[in-house]
Amino acid sequence: MYHALTEDEVVEYVRALPGLFTGTAPLLSREIGDGNLNMVFQVREDGVEGRSVIVKQALPYIRVIGESWPMTLDRARIECEVLQIQNEYDPGRVPKVYHYDVELALFIMEDLSEYMIMRKALISRKQYPNFPQHIGRFLARTLFLSSDYALESGIKKQLVGRYINPELCKLSEDVIFTDPYCDSPRNNYHSLIEREALSLRQDIELKLEVAKLKVKFLTQAQALVHGDLHTGSIMVTDTDTRVIDPEFAFFAPMGFDIGAVIGNILLNHAAHIGHSSDPLQRGEYQQYLIGMIRGVWMFFEEEFRSLWKDRMIEPSVNIEGYLNDVLINILQDTAGFAGCKMIRRVVGIAHVSDLESIADEQLRAESEKLALINARKLVVNRARITTINDLIEMIESDGSL
Amino acid sequence: MYHALTEDEVVEYVRALPGLFTGTAPLLSREIGDGNLNMVFQVREDGVEGRSVIVKQALPYIRVIGESWPMTLDRARIECEVLQIQNEYDPGRVPKVYHYDVELALFIMEDLSEYMIMRKALISRKQYPNFPQHIGRFLARTLFLSSDYALESGIKKQLVGRYINPELCKLSEDVIFTDPYCDSPRNNYHSLIEREALSLRQDIELKLEVAKLKVKFLTQAQALVHGDLHTGSIMVTDTDTRVIDPEFAFFAPMGFDIGAVIGNILLNHAAHIGHSSDPLQRGEYQQYLIGMIRGVWMFFEEEFRSLWKDRMIEPSVNIEGYLNDVLINILQDTAGFAGCKMIRRVVGIAHVSDLESIADEQLRAESEKLALINARKLVVNRARITTINDLIEMIESDGSL
Repeated sequence: MYHALTEDEVVEYVRALPGLFTGTAPLLSREIGDGNLNMVFQVREDGVEGRSVIVKQALPYIRVIGESWPMTLDRARIECEVLQIQNEYDPGRVPKVYHYDVELALFIMEDLSEYMIMRKALISRKQYPNFPQHIGRFLARTLFLSSDYALESGIKKQLVGRYINPELCKLSEDVIFTDPYCDSPRNNYHSLIEREALSLRQDIELKLEVAKLKVKFLTQAQALVHGDLHTGSIMVTDTDTRVIDPEFAFFAPMGFDIGAVIGNILLNHAAHIGHSSDPLQRGEYQQYLIGMIRGVWMFFEEEFRSLWKDRMIEPSVNIEGYLNDVLINILQDTAGFAGCKMIRRVVGIAHVSDLESIADEQLRAESEKLALINARKLVVNRARITTINDLIEMIESDGSL
Repeated sequence: MYHALTEDEVVEYVRALPGLFTGTAPLLSREIGDGNLNMVFQVREDGVEGRSVIVKQALPYIRVIGESWPMTLDRARIECEVLQIQNEYDPGRVPKVYHYDVELALFIMEDLSEYMIMRKALISRKQYPNFPQHIGRFLARTLFLSSDYALESGIKKQLVGRYINPELCKLSEDVIFTDPYCDSPRNNYHSLIEREALSLRQDIELKLEVAKLKVKFLTQAQALVHGDLHTGSIMVTDTDTRVIDPEFAFFAPMGFDIGAVIGNILLNHAAHIGHSSDPLQRGEYQQYLIGMIRGVWMFFEEEFRSLWKDRMIEPSVNIEGYLNDVLINILQDTAGFAGCKMIRRVVGIAHVSDLESIADEQLRAESEKLALINARKLVVNRARITTINDLIEMIESDGSL
């Protein structure tokens, strides 16, 4: 029977599983979850060389909000299955899954404690030369290989049915596409940007485009997206990159995931107004981030074109002009969803530490305004974007709200 | 246990059901199916005033092809459930369902023997003043009310999962969007239009647009479409209109259904080259058909706008410009899918009696060429269409292949 496990119960549970910890060393358990939704335990063998695993258990509600916002336990199944699917599409890019328990809504996976959360790394102005290639390819492989381009029609439709994920979709629909543009009690913004936050609700041009993107999110079952691919769902070392937490996965536009990555890099880009007191250092790191965005898209496109050539099973689209048209559509969706995800992180329910950790109120407000300006440009003008350089020029051009 | 019923077994089956036939008159059974897929029995009480019902049973294969092409029995559930959903959305426009038997993959419904198949009626140049209003409203109601505009997000997603319908979708994908444009053994065309049929396979501009429409059909879960709404799925009397056979139903672009209606009217329009020897009479009926197309769209749009006003539950789209944008997109999809459906009926596996019944080979070829010319215009130039008059002008303009 389901119940939320304590740290001690997690130890007992893991100990009883065959093959996971075969030694006699005591097991230590620690709840380390800093996410919004679930319980996350690290269980490790005592001692310097001890093995460790992560036990992630879904709660029947949203952790940061409490029992007043119930949330399906089925998200543990979705997350655990999608990790395995993603590992098949792009081996080694997600944590290995060792065990799933449907009743307890928990699964056990590889511990990535030596990795750093990408968001934190970017706040500290670290550089990751492999990141664009790792994430660009991950996006291309997981999105292309779960689409009608690579899956037989009946198999793809079965997967669509298996990952309908209505409750987590509803959460995204509300907090990303609806709340920021109306007077929702869930909204939350700093008083210094009140004028800008309120102006979003009157911005007909922006709201029209956000509505189109919302309906696209609701209706276009293009590929099995991660569904929440911000920089807090990515872990890095100096050489490696891992993607975690795909519990929001469902069939949606490919640009939703790519836009999440790029939008979150752009949030960090704006935040360096507050984090880098030296303007030269700031400008340099912001240029590094712009190069990272270009790299993510270029590796995505390169891998997507290569999969198109090698793994395409749909003969109808094997025709001049089609692939370019598809890539332009994905890029425009990417720009639009990136913008939506940036706006909601500034004025909506869940903020990002890139901006929240800026101590100076004025600088934080400046950073947040820059994020809103860039976000609006991407959403409203995305139809003008046909290459990644167009997107970058749009970011680098002047703008106001 | 499932087995295909004989006429006698159908009588026994119906007799054993409580409440259907309460009298003592003998029951007569007759297999009357002229469709491609299923067995259809009429069961009636002997005598002039006798009641009658239709028993429709799915076979585990496609009837016209035989056991070599297996086909899911689950289509009986989908058809029978969707008839009930459509009756809720637009009461009285589909036959009433009395009974469903999951094991035998059959259901029992209202007998519409006094109705005429719309396709047959159009071949005989009959006129139906109520048809545009009935079908236009049916389209608006069934499509709008099953979309994210009218259904709570979680409920719509449950319905998407319930009507995934992979096998019948695969059939549509292949015979509508793929076969006509390649050397498929399922294709079939008259020798007099061989040049035109073969030229489709080399027509890069057309194939590119058909590929885009195919991917839209594969990925856009906009509304619960009928899925096969040609004029053989519509029955009429002088005053009434009914829609039958929604076994291909799934969540797809709204324009797929509207395009099926308009495409099939245009097939009939082209066929009158062969059916009306008097050019004046022909021109007059063709104008009548063009008016019918205009009427179907206008009643669709009127009802859609009215539902938008009264039944919209999605606040984000309640914004200037959005509804016009949606209607233009639906109209362009309508044009594209109409064209695809016309082409496949001329060169693909399953033809239409509008064209097949033309005795004169030359006139039939002329009719078929006109259908192909109009179809190509709609597919390739659909982005230029923003009003129904644009679509009609496109049909009435000169063209060639």
